[in-house]
Amino acid sequence: MSALVLDGKALAQKTEEELSARVADLKAKSGGQTPILATILVGDDPASATYVKMKGNACRRIGMDSLQVELPSSTTTEQLLAKIEELNANPNVHGILLQHPVPEQIDERACFDAIALTKDVDGVTCLGFGRMAMGEEAYGCATPKGIMRLLEAYNIELEGKHAVVVGRSPILGKPMAAMLLNANATVTICHSRTKNLADHIRQADIVVGAVGRPEFIKADWIKDGAVVVDAGYHPGGVGDIELEPLTERAAAYTPVPGGVGPMTINTLIYQSVDSGEKKIG
Amino acid sequence: MSALVLDGKALAQKTEEELSARVADLKAKSGGQTPILATILVGDDPASATYVKMKGNACRRIGMDSLQVELPSSTTTEQLLAKIEELNANPNVHGILLQHPVPEQIDERACFDAIALTKDVDGVTCLGFGRMAMGEEAYGCATPKGIMRLLEAYNIELEGKHAVVVGRSPILGKPMAAMLLNANATVTICHSRTKNLADHIRQADIVVGAVGRPEFIKADWIKDGAVVVDAGYHPGGVGDIELEPLTERAAAYTPVPGGVGPMTINTLIYQSVDSGEKKIG
Repeated sequence: MSALVLDGKALAQKTEEELSARVADLKAKSGGQTPILATILVGDDPASATYVKMKGNACRRIGMDSLQVELPSSTTTEQLLAKIEELNANPNVHGILLQHPVPEQIDERACFDAIALTKDVDGVTCLGFGRMAMGEEAYGCATPKGIMRLLEAYNIELEGKHAVVVGRSPILGKPMAAMLLNANATVTICHSRTKNLADHIRQADIVVGAVGRPEFIKADWIKDGAVVVDAGYHPGGVGDIELEPLTERAAAYTPVPGGVGPMTINTLIYQSVDSGEKKIG
Repeated sequence: MSALVLDGKALAQKTEEELSARVADLKAKSGGQTPILATILVGDDPASATYVKMKGNACRRIGMDSLQVELPSSTTTEQLLAKIEELNANPNVHGILLQHPVPEQIDERACFDAIALTKDVDGVTCLGFGRMAMGEEAYGCATPKGIMRLLEAYNIELEGKHAVVVGRSPILGKPMAAMLLNANATVTICHSRTKNLADHIRQADIVVGAVGRPEFIKADWIKDGAVVVDAGYHPGGVGDIELEPLTERAAAYTPVPGGVGPMTINTLIYQSVDSGEKKIG
């Protein structure tokens, strides 16, 4: 039997149609106003420039605007904080994305945390994380929230299941674990210091690979019938999990590419539209 | 062989001596200023009144002052928020404790979260939790931080160990899991929806019982040589874990009473002294 493919690309496309309709509706009701996402790119890293461009393009596809802020690689923490404060205060800006990573002289955590809670549509602030983890209203961190939306769209049951999250980064493993816990899964968080990693993964009903190393998690560590979520993407179109042998014996899996990746940007614009509706609508 | 007793009472007493010396030193340097903890008691619940009194007594034992605020049970959210803002703005107040629970007409979460980060010496704000979980500076939630201090005092190794936290409350299970993860343990969080709880607990090198039900966790679910932390306290002097059979075969355990309990208030005053030193010193 083939595993169910958790098709993030298809869900993202379908969601874009719904978001386009919501943006059109908001425009019609408000005399032409649209949600606006401010994107901040600091420096000239080509990969970061590409990501920011993709995010701006996604905004335009659904009829939203993006306000593109580009700052030189010599930008100081104070200058970036001042720009974020300006965007926080701008009533026409509904969401703020600060593209990671920023040049090393900048205190990135301080800059992320300067983003106003109601404009933190990428879900990167400590306050937003804390509120989400405590079950209070906050935008979720884009990648794990995208994974939750994908699992929900396919009616994957989480309550009472044992989820094993491999990785504990601030924007992936930690919020992923908190979201799965909020969905009533029993959650284990593994990481680089975990002993007997394979033994932990073997018990998982749901595995989330978020380690950033190509095919680090081996297929034979994963039990038959598990739900496999691969949040990695590496050159050659492979993720963090050895997926090929699982396409038959998993219950469901996210392909690479086309699984988790499209849901990240989709969640960013999904949350931006929500923020726009709250402030314009 | 008898298990090592993690004696919270003794550690708290020893720490109080150290804190007394630090407070005396601060007074001498600052012309008589002492750290001040503001305690807020809303309503007339006798148990809450007792807890607040114990916290005030602990302050006085180490030479700190406490500013005791008592509000009627009819207090509104707005009135309580106004009082917290007043204490936030008062430069002579170095820590704020809002005694849980508040009367039900009050939005307790909003009131907790109104406490300024630098005065949140009880570690109850979403912002403080988020910062702690992300490895940023913040006071830890008093009970789990007290447990971490107790484990550290006895040199209990956490890195690479499998810690199973049973319970996911905002002031115990969730911050406990985040602190153990920060200490490089592999962490599993179990709760009321967990299936096969005993099987999860059997794997634990470190078990933390934080469920609030007397002896809910059975001794025979716990493997020989585990470190057993019982954060519960119930009438009759029992905790959340059936401890008696473990006193021989655990590696270490927290007694009830005299284990975790004394460390909670101790951590509150420990963090209050730290806050006082930062602002006065």
